[in-house]
Amino acid sequence: MSDQDASPVPSLRWVELPEGPVVVLLDQTRLPREEVEFFCTDVPALVDAIRALRVRGAPLLGVAGGYGVALAAARGFDVEESARQLAAARPTAVNLAWGVQRVLACHRRILDAGGTPEAAARAALGEARAVHREDAEAAERLAESGADLLRELVPGGGLRILTHCNTGRLVSGGEGTALAVVWRLHRAGEVRTLWVDETRPLFQGSRLTAYEAAREGVPYSVLPDNAAGSLFAAGEVDAVLTGADRIAADGSVANKIGTYPLAVLARYHHVPFVVVAPTSTVDLATDTGSLIEVEQRSGHEVTEPVPGTPVAPLGARAYNPAFDVTPPELVTAIVTEAGVVSPVTGDDLADLCSPPGRTSRLGNGMMNS
Amino acid sequence: MSDQDASPVPSLRWVELPEGPVVVLLDQTRLPREEVEFFCTDVPALVDAIRALRVRGAPLLGVAGGYGVALAAARGFDVEESARQLAAARPTAVNLAWGVQRVLACHRRILDAGGTPEAAARAALGEARAVHREDAEAAERLAESGADLLRELVPGGGLRILTHCNTGRLVSGGEGTALAVVWRLHRAGEVRTLWVDETRPLFQGSRLTAYEAAREGVPYSVLPDNAAGSLFAAGEVDAVLTGADRIAADGSVANKIGTYPLAVLARYHHVPFVVVAPTSTVDLATDTGSLIEVEQRSGHEVTEPVPGTPVAPLGARAYNPAFDVTPPELVTAIVTEAGVVSPVTGDDLADLCSPPGRTSRLGNGMMNS
Repeated sequence: MSDQDASPVPSLRWVELPEGPVVVLLDQTRLPREEVEFFCTDVPALVDAIRALRVRGAPLLGVAGGYGVALAAARGFDVEESARQLAAARPTAVNLAWGVQRVLACHRRILDAGGTPEAAARAALGEARAVHREDAEAAERLAESGADLLRELVPGGGLRILTHCNTGRLVSGGEGTALAVVWRLHRAGEVRTLWVDETRPLFQGSRLTAYEAAREGVPYSVLPDNAAGSLFAAGEVDAVLTGADRIAADGSVANKIGTYPLAVLARYHHVPFVVVAPTSTVDLATDTGSLIEVEQRSGHEVTEPVPGTPVAPLGARAYNPAFDVTPPELVTAIVTEAGVVSPVTGDDLADLCSPPGRTSRLGNGMMNS
Repeated sequence: MSDQDASPVPSLRWVELPEGPVVVLLDQTRLPREEVEFFCTDVPALVDAIRALRVRGAPLLGVAGGYGVALAAARGFDVEESARQLAAARPTAVNLAWGVQRVLACHRRILDAGGTPEAAARAALGEARAVHREDAEAAERLAESGADLLRELVPGGGLRILTHCNTGRLVSGGEGTALAVVWRLHRAGEVRTLWVDETRPLFQGSRLTAYEAAREGVPYSVLPDNAAGSLFAAGEVDAVLTGADRIAADGSVANKIGTYPLAVLARYHHVPFVVVAPTSTVDLATDTGSLIEVEQRSGHEVTEPVPGTPVAPLGARAYNPAFDVTPPELVTAIVTEAGVVSPVTGDDLADLCSPPGRTSRLGNGMMNS
C-alpha cells in the first residue's frame, strides 16, 4: 500500500515482547533527522513521552492514552492511578482524557462484573485497539468530507492551502485530520501548493508537516508563521486548513498557538478557514472557548529555539502558551467524521455529536463498545 | 549620562586610526551574547556587513551608507562606484540609498566646484556626520511626539505595548524610533509591559529588543510572533508600536515581516497601530505600497533557525520575504520627527515631508547642506 511506503514507521504501535507488552512511539522530537522509536514499558515513561511531545497531536493522544491504560492493566500496575496520571499529562487536548476514560471504563466494567484482572486487561487492550481503529476510520471520513467541502468552497482545483502545526499521519491512527484532507486532494491532482507554517515555538510545521509532505510528494514551502500575512495579501492562499486540540460546545476551537491570527487574517481576506477534527475532539462539557484551559509551556522553548543555543539574553522572560482559541464566528466550517458544521453553531455541533448511534465518540464508550 | 550607561558600545562610529579612517559597527549578529565591534576599512566590507545584518535598521542604514561614501572618499576609493554598491546592498530600506545619495551629492558638489579630492572627502565626512547627528535629533523628536500621541490614544498610563523587530538605539544615531518612544514613556513611569515579538526568522526581537529592554530596565516578555493574537484576544495589548523600512507616498508601510498581521489583528481588536519613523524613511518617489520592492532572503534562515542546526527536512523549500507592506488604512498614525500623520493619507504625508525648510530630509540634501 502506498501509505505504507510513504511512512513505514507507524506513529504508535502496541508490541508484545517476551518480557511483556510495550507501547512503541515514533519519537517525534527526533524527526525529521532520525526515525527513532521510543519504547514505553510503563506508564510514567509514556506520561513523560507525552509531556516531552515525543507523541503528540490530539487524535493520537487519545490512542496513546487508551493504550497507556491497557499497558497498566497488562503489566499489573495501578490502573486507576495510571489513568489519572495519563489524563493529566497535558491539559488542553481533550482526546487524551477521552481515550483514557474510555479504556478505563471498559476495564472497570469487567472487574465490576466479577471478571479477573487478566480478563479486564484483555478487554482494555481490545478497547484501546478499537479507539485506534476507529480513529483511522474517522481519518478516512474526515479526508473525504474535507476534500468535498474544499471543492465546494474553492472550485476549480489548483488549490493553495495554508496549514499550521502538524495534523497528518503523525497525529493519528490513520492519515490525520487537516493533512489527511490535503493528501486526499493531492492524490486527485488538486493541490498546487501546501504552505507550511513553521509553527513556533517547536517547529512542528518545519519538522513534521514538511517531513510528511515530502513523503507524500506534495509540493510545499515552509514559512515563518509571521509571513502568512504576506501570502494572504498577495492572494496566494485559497483556504486555511487546521486541526484542533479541543472544540468547546459553542464551537470555539483551541488549537496550536498561531491558529487564531490565521483565522483573523483569513476573515480579513475572505478566505475560508476550515477546522478538521474527529468528534472525539469536541468537548460538550466545556461550554465556551474561554473555559478551555490553555497549557502554558516553559519560556525556554521561546528564548532557546534550538536547545543549547539561547538567542534571547540570559534571564529573559517569555510568554509561551501552547494553544490559542478561535471563536466560532471566525471558523467557516468544522469537518468531523460525523459530518460538517457550517456555519458553526453550538446547536449544530451538539446535534452532530449526540445522535443515538454516536455516543461512543463522546467519552461514554463503555455504553456500547 | 544614563544613556551611555545603558549602552556603552555605540551602534556605529567613525574612527580615525593611524592607518586611515574606519567605520566601526557593533556587530548585531553577535548580540546579545557578545558585544563585539566590526571594523570596516573599505566599502566592500561595509557592504557585506550590511547584507549580513551586522548593521541594520532603517535609520542606521542611512547613517552607515553616508559614512560608507565618506570612507570611500577618505581612502581614495572610487566614490561613485562605492556609492552604487552601498545603495544596492539591501533593496527595501530607502534610508540606505538616501544616506548614500546625500553624502555623494555633497562630495560631487565640491568636486564640481573645483575642490580637491581631499576637500571633497572632508565635506563628505562632514555631511555623513550631519546625517548621523540629525538622525539622533530626529529620534529625540520622534520619542517626544510618539509619547504624546500614546498618552492621547491610551490615557491613564500603565501601557502594555507590543512591538516587532528592533527599533531602538541599535537602529539609530540616537535612541531609535518605536523603541525610543517606549524608553521615553518608561522613564515617565508609564509602561507596564513591553511585549517583544521574537521576530522570525532572525530573532531580532529576542536578540536585540530584549537586549535593549533589559539595559533600559523596561519590564518585557518575549513571545513567538504567532502568540500575539492571544494577547490581543485577552485584552493585554494597549497599542502596537513599530518602525518602518520604507513608507510609500500613499502611506503604505514596508516593515519587517510579521508587521502586517499585527496591523490586521490590531484593527480587529480596535487597538491603535502606530508607526514611528523619521521622514528619511518616506519615499515619495514610490507611489503605492505594491511598488515597494520586498527583499527575498535565503530559505536557510527559515529551515535552519540557528545556523548549523537544520530543523526542516533537507531540501525543504522556504518562503522568506524580509518585509511585508501594511496599507495606510490599517495604520492609526505615522509619527515622524516633523509631525504626526493621522489618519494616514498621501496628501498629509506629502505636506509633512515637503515644507520648504525640510527638503534636506527628502534625498536632495545637496540643496541646503
